[in-house]
Amino acid sequence: MELIYKGKNKNIYRLPTGALQIQFTDAVTGENGVFEPAAKSILKTVPGAALSSTQLSAYFFKKLNAIDVPTHFISVDADHTSISVKDTTPFGGHGIDVICRFRAIGAFEARYNEFVEHGEELDTLVEMVLKDEHEELPPILPDTLEALGIMTLPEYNFMKNLARDVSEFIRMDLAKKGLELYDMKLEFGRDSQNNEILLINEMSANNMHVYKGERLINPIELEEIMLKK
Amino acid sequence: MELIYKGKNKNIYRLPTGALQIQFTDAVTGENGVFEPAAKSILKTVPGAALSSTQLSAYFFKKLNAIDVPTHFISVDADHTSISVKDTTPFGGHGIDVICRFRAIGAFEARYNEFVEHGEELDTLVEMVLKDEHEELPPILPDTLEALGIMTLPEYNFMKNLARDVSEFIRMDLAKKGLELYDMKLEFGRDSQNNEILLINEMSANNMHVYKGERLINPIELEEIMLKK
Repeated sequence: MELIYKGKNKNIYRLPTGALQIQFTDAVTGENGVFEPAAKSILKTVPGAALSSTQLSAYFFKKLNAIDVPTHFISVDADHTSISVKDTTPFGGHGIDVICRFRAIGAFEARYNEFVEHGEELDTLVEMVLKDEHEELPPILPDTLEALGIMTLPEYNFMKNLARDVSEFIRMDLAKKGLELYDMKLEFGRDSQNNEILLINEMSANNMHVYKGERLINPIELEEIMLKK
Repeated sequence: MELIYKGKNKNIYRLPTGALQIQFTDAVTGENGVFEPAAKSILKTVPGAALSSTQLSAYFFKKLNAIDVPTHFISVDADHTSISVKDTTPFGGHGIDVICRFRAIGAFEARYNEFVEHGEELDTLVEMVLKDEHEELPPILPDTLEALGIMTLPEYNFMKNLARDVSEFIRMDLAKKGLELYDMKLEFGRDSQNNEILLINEMSANNMHVYKGERLINPIELEEIMLKK
């Protein structure tokens, strides 16, 4: 299999069928000894983290596929630590992060600290962040995405609305277990076969800030609370 | 008179009438020995720069007032280096820059250098930049401005469309003299009397990139070409 992406939480391979395989790792990101999904460095290796990410991603993707959300998810693989997904083309070449915010924390709170309180409620605010070869760029306007030829305004609105629907669906599912989704990072890509816009990437604690009361829930806990009780 | 703002190109005073006076300075901004309107430092003092900024601002504001664009401009003062304007409240406390881009240069080109060519045409792209106490923040989305309570979406669209109309008007006026407007920074505020949104700040080479062929035109030249020939 050809390795086409090597990341902290996952590696992605191209399968002989043309589909992709997301192979999760046991790495957990963080900084200053504390778990943080948006951190740029690995905090530690936690046996079981890959299994947790796989099970949670499969759990959410299956639920989303069942309500006709277009996703790249095909199946969980026999090793239980990877999923097979459709091949997609990233927006702009390196992809776009679509961030849904229910509360002001993290980078958003830091950026607008003069204008928001810590943890202030936001009405499912959606921001898109374009990635170039080297880094994540600042939030990008829909008009700018169109001007750069990365997506049309109707495509922007389609993804914005779908991101809101998906994150609201997940927020409600977490709430049933007494958890609160503060924010979530989604990604979309174009289906390499037919150009359809699909929800891609993973659906795990690696791309959500999930709180139980005042405490940020780590990847292993999230899977245990959601799938094992 | 009470000094309420001290900047590189201008100082702003509150007049006994409640109106404001923008007193231009002879400072010209730049870096590495070259004029650059968006530069953070003063390049040199050029006798006549304050007069040029005053005359050009008055020239454009009078034209805009005449076609019913709501602006803060009242009159040129007797000293010929200051203008009297209506008092306005800045958006978000420290104001918002509304940037109209006809060509990709400067900060935009640097940010999206993987996605645009130098000087590439942009279809009057409008981006807004929120300022906090310390700095200009990255481009901000209309949804985020609404979530932070800084403006409503209809207000965003009003300013975006007005900024496009104003910059297009100025672009065409410059074109009559063989000049090309690459981009322009506009500011808006709320009229302190009645909350009406007004075009504020100045209209000079301090907030435009104006080219003659391949060469960036400096403040003195711009006024000479526009008003003295």
